[in-house]
Amino acid sequence: MAKAKTIDDLFYDTLKDIYYAERKILKTLPKMARGAHSPDLKAAFEKHRLETEGQVGRLQDVFEVIGKRAVGKTCDAIEGIVAEGEEILEEYGGTPAVDAGLIAAAQAVEHYEITRYGTLKRWAQLLGHKEAVALLDATLKEESQTDKDLTVLADAGVNEMAKAM
Amino acid sequence: MAKAKTIDDLFYDTLKDIYYAERKILKTLPKMARGAHSPDLKAAFEKHRLETEGQVGRLQDVFEVIGKRAVGKTCDAIEGIVAEGEEILEEYGGTPAVDAGLIAAAQAVEHYEITRYGTLKRWAQLLGHKEAVALLDATLKEESQTDKDLTVLADAGVNEMAKAM
Repeated sequence: MAKAKTIDDLFYDTLKDIYYAERKILKTLPKMARGAHSPDLKAAFEKHRLETEGQVGRLQDVFEVIGKRAVGKTCDAIEGIVAEGEEILEEYGGTPAVDAGLIAAAQAVEHYEITRYGTLKRWAQLLGHKEAVALLDATLKEESQTDKDLTVLADAGVNEMAKAM
Repeated sequence: MAKAKTIDDLFYDTLKDIYYAERKILKTLPKMARGAHSPDLKAAFEKHRLETEGQVGRLQDVFEVIGKRAVGKTCDAIEGIVAEGEEILEEYGGTPAVDAGLIAAAQAVEHYEITRYGTLKRWAQLLGHKEAVALLDATLKEESQTDKDLTVLADAGVNEMAKAM
């Protein structure tokens, strides 16, 4: 009989899930930047792409801290979330509503990351991986800030523009 | 040439997306309750199932407010998020780590709903659908509370139990 899986396995499996997700996001952000209408939104996606590169590096550090190989595992959630973003580009690309749609899609991505990093940080605390807690917390703070920045962008006029045009 | 899609279309499309998602969640919660080990977690899933029924009703009210038909539209994001929850049940079912995994899966669902309702509320404000703003805000508050309750459950011992067993 196979040994029952433990919270250590769950931590490692979820790390692999978010590692896959971050690399998927890295490939998706340039498409979103290209599809955005507002220069501010384009710049926000570009800034977040650079930030995401750092987050991938931090995850590699977490794998090292726990002495496990850095590998990804297909993350169905991010596949679905990104597919919805691509649908926005297809259906709203070039329309005044595209930026509002892209902001919504990007915030869905951020919220997925926020919940995963929140969970991973809690588990790292439980398992006594102190160094991993700090790494995961740094990324969690960045994702929360990105989500807030996107709300500011939406409120500051992208939505109004979509309505006015 | 087809008329360019607008922010009104985006609002309606996203309503259809979350309407599909809520009904999918309604079908999934009993499976999660059955798979949970802790009676408190089972009770939390059952409570949220009842709450979700009310949220589906509120969405039907929003469709009515905007004078559109209440129909769902396949939501790839929730399909992916729910698939990950089912994977937890398959891989961790019956193990001491199952509750920690189910809480994480449920929080991913909540965060998806939080971001969608936050966006929809903002668009309803922009479009002057006052009644819809109140309905969407009521659900947004419930989802945020459910997410907090799940964190309390995780902190209060479900994770500790997973580690100790």
